[in-house]
Amino acid sequence: MPERKKGLMIVVSGPAGSGKDTVLAELQGDERFRRSVSATTRAPRPGEVDGRDYHFITRETFEQWIADGEMLEYTEYCGNYYGTPKKAAEAVMESGTNLILKIEVEGAANVERLYPEAVTIMLLPPTAAVLEARLRGRGTESEEVIRTRLARAREEVAHVKDYDYVVYNHDGRAAEAAEMIRRIVEVEGHSTARNPHIAEAYFA
Amino acid sequence: MPERKKGLMIVVSGPAGSGKDTVLAELQGDERFRRSVSATTRAPRPGEVDGRDYHFITRETFEQWIADGEMLEYTEYCGNYYGTPKKAAEAVMESGTNLILKIEVEGAANVERLYPEAVTIMLLPPTAAVLEARLRGRGTESEEVIRTRLARAREEVAHVKDYDYVVYNHDGRAAEAAEMIRRIVEVEGHSTARNPHIAEAYFA
Repeated sequence: MPERKKGLMIVVSGPAGSGKDTVLAELQGDERFRRSVSATTRAPRPGEVDGRDYHFITRETFEQWIADGEMLEYTEYCGNYYGTPKKAAEAVMESGTNLILKIEVEGAANVERLYPEAVTIMLLPPTAAVLEARLRGRGTESEEVIRTRLARAREEVAHVKDYDYVVYNHDGRAAEAAEMIRRIVEVEGHSTARNPHIAEAYFA
Repeated sequence: MPERKKGLMIVVSGPAGSGKDTVLAELQGDERFRRSVSATTRAPRPGEVDGRDYHFITRETFEQWIADGEMLEYTEYCGNYYGTPKKAAEAVMESGTNLILKIEVEGAANVERLYPEAVTIMLLPPTAAVLEARLRGRGTESEEVIRTRLARAREEVAHVKDYDYVVYNHDGRAAEAAEMIRRIVEVEGHSTARNPHIAEAYFA
């Protein structure tokens, strides 16, 4: 029974309110999945360890890595860069573990271009009404802010067709969405497209 | 949360010894899956009901249906025809139930041509050694018969790349293989390729 050796790259995206963090937290502790260590230009906080919490690198190095195509995706936030170094990502997959990447919708296209074999999943609230309710949150934001968020979410959902799968994350049922991600990965492992030499290996 | 309405066509093939019948028996009673009623030219046996056990039709009708492209696949065995009428198959899918078709490897290509959207699964013993052990069975066959069976199985396994998925059926673990088929169908239901209007439906 031939088995794939390398781990898969699993890209999980979704609009704000889709619950990406909650769902991915459910996969923590599952040895079949691992996040890669991100790189950042911000200073380490007390207790943070280089290479475990982040790869702490200089702005110069970060920009060099971008220029060299060494960053799978990155973003700038509050004056600091955050990103996924290709090498860290590949180290996880080479070890045979599936790599989970949480990526904004706008960054996912770049990853898909670099790794067309990635399994891409868009996480969505079960309905547009639930999405809106989550974005409204505790009602402390102005109607204008809400409208901007909704418009952005709508644009992001329009990209769902660029993903391989859609997974719905119902209120309070993040564990189910995480289980669906596990099943997608399990089933992809049985696809003949990902295992082109089954017959040869079978009779080897 | 938009859901597909029509059932999927699930084609299950595999060489002799792969355990197709045992695995599909595990799906019996699962309301999400149904076999279609086959057509045959043989006479009904006592207790068999037309339209439930088989569609009992004349040789003339059967050959007309073949000529009209109304047979998804068929075979002749002991002087009688057996086959899957397109209409019976489509009735199951239209009802929203997934249709399970057990088809010989040589017939699967025809179904794939007629229904490229079918989910095609090749069932295999976990290893070639297990395949051989199963084909040898209780050791009552001549070596020549065994060799012929093995050669045929080898040819059939070579077609695995024409299927979407491979599922291994370990000795005594048919329930696991059936569960894998369930998961494949569940995951396919989440693929964006099979649900091209997710975004439109979401904001409708």
